[in-house]
Amino acid sequence: MTTHRTWRAAVFIAASVDGYIALPDGDIDWLTDPPHEPRHVPAQPGEHPPPDYEQFTAGVSHLVMGRGTYEKVLTFGFWPYEALRVLVLTTTLTAGEDPRITVVRSTTEARQFLDAEHPTGVYVDGGRVLTDFLRQGLVDELTITRAPVVLGRGLPLFHDLPAQVRLVHRGTASLGAGMVSTRYDVTRDDQYER
Amino acid sequence: MTTHRTWRAAVFIAASVDGYIALPDGDIDWLTDPPHEPRHVPAQPGEHPPPDYEQFTAGVSHLVMGRGTYEKVLTFGFWPYEALRVLVLTTTLTAGEDPRITVVRSTTEARQFLDAEHPTGVYVDGGRVLTDFLRQGLVDELTITRAPVVLGRGLPLFHDLPAQVRLVHRGTASLGAGMVSTRYDVTRDDQYER
Repeated sequence: MTTHRTWRAAVFIAASVDGYIALPDGDIDWLTDPPHEPRHVPAQPGEHPPPDYEQFTAGVSHLVMGRGTYEKVLTFGFWPYEALRVLVLTTTLTAGEDPRITVVRSTTEARQFLDAEHPTGVYVDGGRVLTDFLRQGLVDELTITRAPVVLGRGLPLFHDLPAQVRLVHRGTASLGAGMVSTRYDVTRDDQYER
Repeated sequence: MTTHRTWRAAVFIAASVDGYIALPDGDIDWLTDPPHEPRHVPAQPGEHPPPDYEQFTAGVSHLVMGRGTYEKVLTFGFWPYEALRVLVLTTTLTAGEDPRITVVRSTTEARQFLDAEHPTGVYVDGGRVLTDFLRQGLVDELTITRAPVVLGRGLPLFHDLPAQVRLVHRGTASLGAGMVSTRYDVTRDDQYER
């Protein structure tokens, strides 16, 4: 994007080793209720640990998700985002039905809304929205936590993109329970010398 | 597999953050010739560093790859596997044309060949062969090194699998240049208590 953006957007998401964020039916039990496995190496934060979820969300005021993620969150039985202004990117949900969310119809509308709100930071969630935002140059940072499982199929973390996106590795930590978290900055290619 | 195997098989492979091992045309310049980026965090081996390529190959006597990987290696202009017995899993190549390789027609034939050879270790390379071997319960260990790039499309590291494969995290290292290497053991689910 050539237009100046006043807010930073970051992804904070878990995925399987083969790059899925959920099973095909949306199930995330493999992530939230993994089998006990005492053989994983112990947690090791390293010198540049990525933020944990609390640190991450403390730095954001807004959350953008797709309808799929929204409907998954509704099954939790509680609303985990009281402190955040939540945008749901959808062409099918009716605006105003859920007062906890703001419905936006396109990435462009999401951006316009965010531009007007002056967020302290924007949390981008879900594979589809992450990919759309990445494609539009609207993602600055990615923290990806890999769970120790190959799911075999599922909902992908990344969908197709028309061009490569170079990243800067900011740090990796072993979290215990087999989880490995890595933080990247997203760069524009023209910032590089070859 | 219920039949006892006398050899261990391990994958040692690089992939993009979005899980590709090559661009759609097989290009791996993004891996072998990345742009200079001084902002990556420095290398940090951690307490349980995965093997590097030399350590890894010192422990194997046999290499199994698919035709795609074989044809990519032919473009290198040199044969990097003098010390290894190389099996190429293919239904199209003619056996005997390249004395450096042994052509096998199926995973079953590869397994039978390996059972008769008593390998010190088997190196499984390429996304298709890795997935076939994983599906057959023939992979014991995975070392995956992530390059700091989202390719957007390409040849996948993992193809679809009919069931989840649980892993044990054995260690992660930051290698410098933005590369992050993680070693996993492959488990059978029945080794777990819930």
